[in-house]
Amino acid sequence: MEKVTATIITIGDELLIGQTIDTNSAWMAQQLNAAGIWVHRRVAIGDDANAIAQALDEEKSKTNIILITGGLGPTADDITKPTLCKYFGGKLVEHAPTKARLIEMMQKRGLATLDRNMQQAMVPDVCTVIDNLRGTAPGMWFEQNGKVFVSMPGVPFEMKGLMEASVIPALVEKFQPPGLLHKTLLTAGMGESFVAERLVDFEAQLPGNIKLAYLPSFGVLKLRLTANGVDKIAAEKELEIQFHKLAALVEDIMVADEDISMAEIVAQIMRKAGASIGTAESCTGGGIGAVISSIAGSSDYFKGGVTSYANEVKTGILGVQENTLKLYGAVSEETALEMVNGALKVLHTDYAVAVTGIMGPGGGSDDKPVGTVWIATANNKRAYTRKYEWRYDRKRNTALTITAALVQLKRFVEAKL
Amino acid sequence: MEKVTATIITIGDELLIGQTIDTNSAWMAQQLNAAGIWVHRRVAIGDDANAIAQALDEEKSKTNIILITGGLGPTADDITKPTLCKYFGGKLVEHAPTKARLIEMMQKRGLATLDRNMQQAMVPDVCTVIDNLRGTAPGMWFEQNGKVFVSMPGVPFEMKGLMEASVIPALVEKFQPPGLLHKTLLTAGMGESFVAERLVDFEAQLPGNIKLAYLPSFGVLKLRLTANGVDKIAAEKELEIQFHKLAALVEDIMVADEDISMAEIVAQIMRKAGASIGTAESCTGGGIGAVISSIAGSSDYFKGGVTSYANEVKTGILGVQENTLKLYGAVSEETALEMVNGALKVLHTDYAVAVTGIMGPGGGSDDKPVGTVWIATANNKRAYTRKYEWRYDRKRNTALTITAALVQLKRFVEAKL
Repeated sequence: MEKVTATIITIGDELLIGQTIDTNSAWMAQQLNAAGIWVHRRVAIGDDANAIAQALDEEKSKTNIILITGGLGPTADDITKPTLCKYFGGKLVEHAPTKARLIEMMQKRGLATLDRNMQQAMVPDVCTVIDNLRGTAPGMWFEQNGKVFVSMPGVPFEMKGLMEASVIPALVEKFQPPGLLHKTLLTAGMGESFVAERLVDFEAQLPGNIKLAYLPSFGVLKLRLTANGVDKIAAEKELEIQFHKLAALVEDIMVADEDISMAEIVAQIMRKAGASIGTAESCTGGGIGAVISSIAGSSDYFKGGVTSYANEVKTGILGVQENTLKLYGAVSEETALEMVNGALKVLHTDYAVAVTGIMGPGGGSDDKPVGTVWIATANNKRAYTRKYEWRYDRKRNTALTITAALVQLKRFVEAKL
Repeated sequence: MEKVTATIITIGDELLIGQTIDTNSAWMAQQLNAAGIWVHRRVAIGDDANAIAQALDEEKSKTNIILITGGLGPTADDITKPTLCKYFGGKLVEHAPTKARLIEMMQKRGLATLDRNMQQAMVPDVCTVIDNLRGTAPGMWFEQNGKVFVSMPGVPFEMKGLMEASVIPALVEKFQPPGLLHKTLLTAGMGESFVAERLVDFEAQLPGNIKLAYLPSFGVLKLRLTANGVDKIAAEKELEIQFHKLAALVEDIMVADEDISMAEIVAQIMRKAGASIGTAESCTGGGIGAVISSIAGSSDYFKGGVTSYANEVKTGILGVQENTLKLYGAVSEETALEMVNGALKVLHTDYAVAVTGIMGPGGGSDDKPVGTVWIATANNKRAYTRKYEWRYDRKRNTALTITAALVQLKRFVEAKL
């Protein structure tokens, strides 16, 4: 069976001047992949009729499916719809169900029914309208010479609704794609080059239809095996065998044997331990708690935290000794230890994690350069502290610290530290 | 003078299967724009020699400059360098300065000098090498028929170093681009359609070389005017005039008259007030503090916060009354008020902001549906509370809450609430 391929085209000047980071494409690619559709290219272009037509011409020669997002909003800089209408030789007509939905939506929100919004009910007569239950601009499905073109709004929440409810199921129905299988594990604490060195022989013996990729991001390195599943059952079996080999080779640095987020890893360990967790954060400003609580159900184990950015909060709420700060400084093993013990005490949790460090660009010294961080993890019986030395900018140092704190917490709870 | 245009090509299978969000392109586009270089297209392709060569062929027919990131790492899935070498008809040779730098870097970090890393010193003999002071893979500058092709590593920190120190200055030197001017303001609290309705006449009277764009993101709507600066001084003057008109039209909803982050807005207001700020967060889990502290120097005004995810932390540390929780619930005006006053007291700050809400997907009721949030802002003299009702998923509700809390804080400190 042939690979079913797609191109994602995102439209909007905001993508070309860099005021918006494109998160839609990554999400769309994940969903398409899971459905067995291979994303061949992603292209971003401006709000420009010629650029849109040219991109459609070029991409339709390369792939089966063209997914278009953006350029459908109610404001004047949106020209996608008339351009698509012209490209496929249609004319704009009113779509009664969309109009009714728009009026109902506006009335429900107590808003006036602006002409500008009502224009969203005008659609090309050569497309199939896809209802957008989360916003005003409907999706549009065009076909030409066996190729499918789907246009969706750029608002992530609306695009996701359309993709999940309508677009993916319809594409699978139409193209019956073969499987594309992934298995991913997460490692931490060893650089990409060194992991790769360890895996030279493993990579060399991989069968031709299985590929290994290294995906580093903020302190975690994902190792992903992808199998081209022409014979799905055989591919699944082979992938399983290779994945077990891989896991054994990186056992010492593995933090998860699936592609999950750090928040989900924390959920797993805390649920398994039947224990609660609290935080004491200095340099991360609350970011560790924000990550832990980013998933639903986290209130089952996350009680809260104290963000002690100022020393007086370290002493006042967490009970860090003035003398400790004076003798060792705020960024020290001693302070991290008193912070973590203070968190256990005031938050009444089974476990706690504390971080204190210098994120930069200022605040460094010869003794404690920018990037110096102490992380402490503790329960009521024992504590573990470790120093980390990052060498990046503030944003990256902060992200690395958050990841390292959660990895250290996981290993501590599992009694591996 | 003609527009100088660029295409950004990002290489990596990870972009096509959606395991990595491309943040490089947005940053690069911003820098290029500031230098007067117009990004015409952005293209993402896989680690595939044919796809790379085809993309180079297509894009060089459209733009003056092709910037390539990714596919230069030390692992086996990177094929960009040999492909570029072949495309430009060169052969790989050892670059002595890069080799010396690699050895020094590895020794400094106490790491073995792996063959895999040493291969990074091999470069095409038809390119100009651009030193990468932040990593192992050097940048490469190729020229062909007046077009420039620059290949850089995909690691954001390394790419940024190369762009700032070498690539942008060299491109400006070579192409002498005309100016492209932007002025942006931020609004909050009114939907895109309604702002657009208000600005219909303003848009209609804009001169042909000035364009208005609407850039909504998580509770803030950016309005950006872009002037095409053929005559730079005239364009600057006209842009200034139009920007003042725009600002006057949206004065009631404007939160900043420049393109700055919420963290920078907080910095401005707290510095102006000469005051300190603390947080009491429930549903945001620490995210408000993380945003406030994301910029350098925030320790001048941010003292810290209490993340009271569990009710016992609300009562135990913030002093919320058990009775208040019983009578009104954790998500209520009364609880938000006691949280904010508790924060002022235990953190000893001049101002505090407190949030409590239901982010979903669970936890909602008829009375308090998912998306219900109370935000309280206070100083020692007065307090202001407001209820917000979001209708999205957990992630978006959380982001909207963080932005709304900081906007409310700004208006409260300015005594507009």
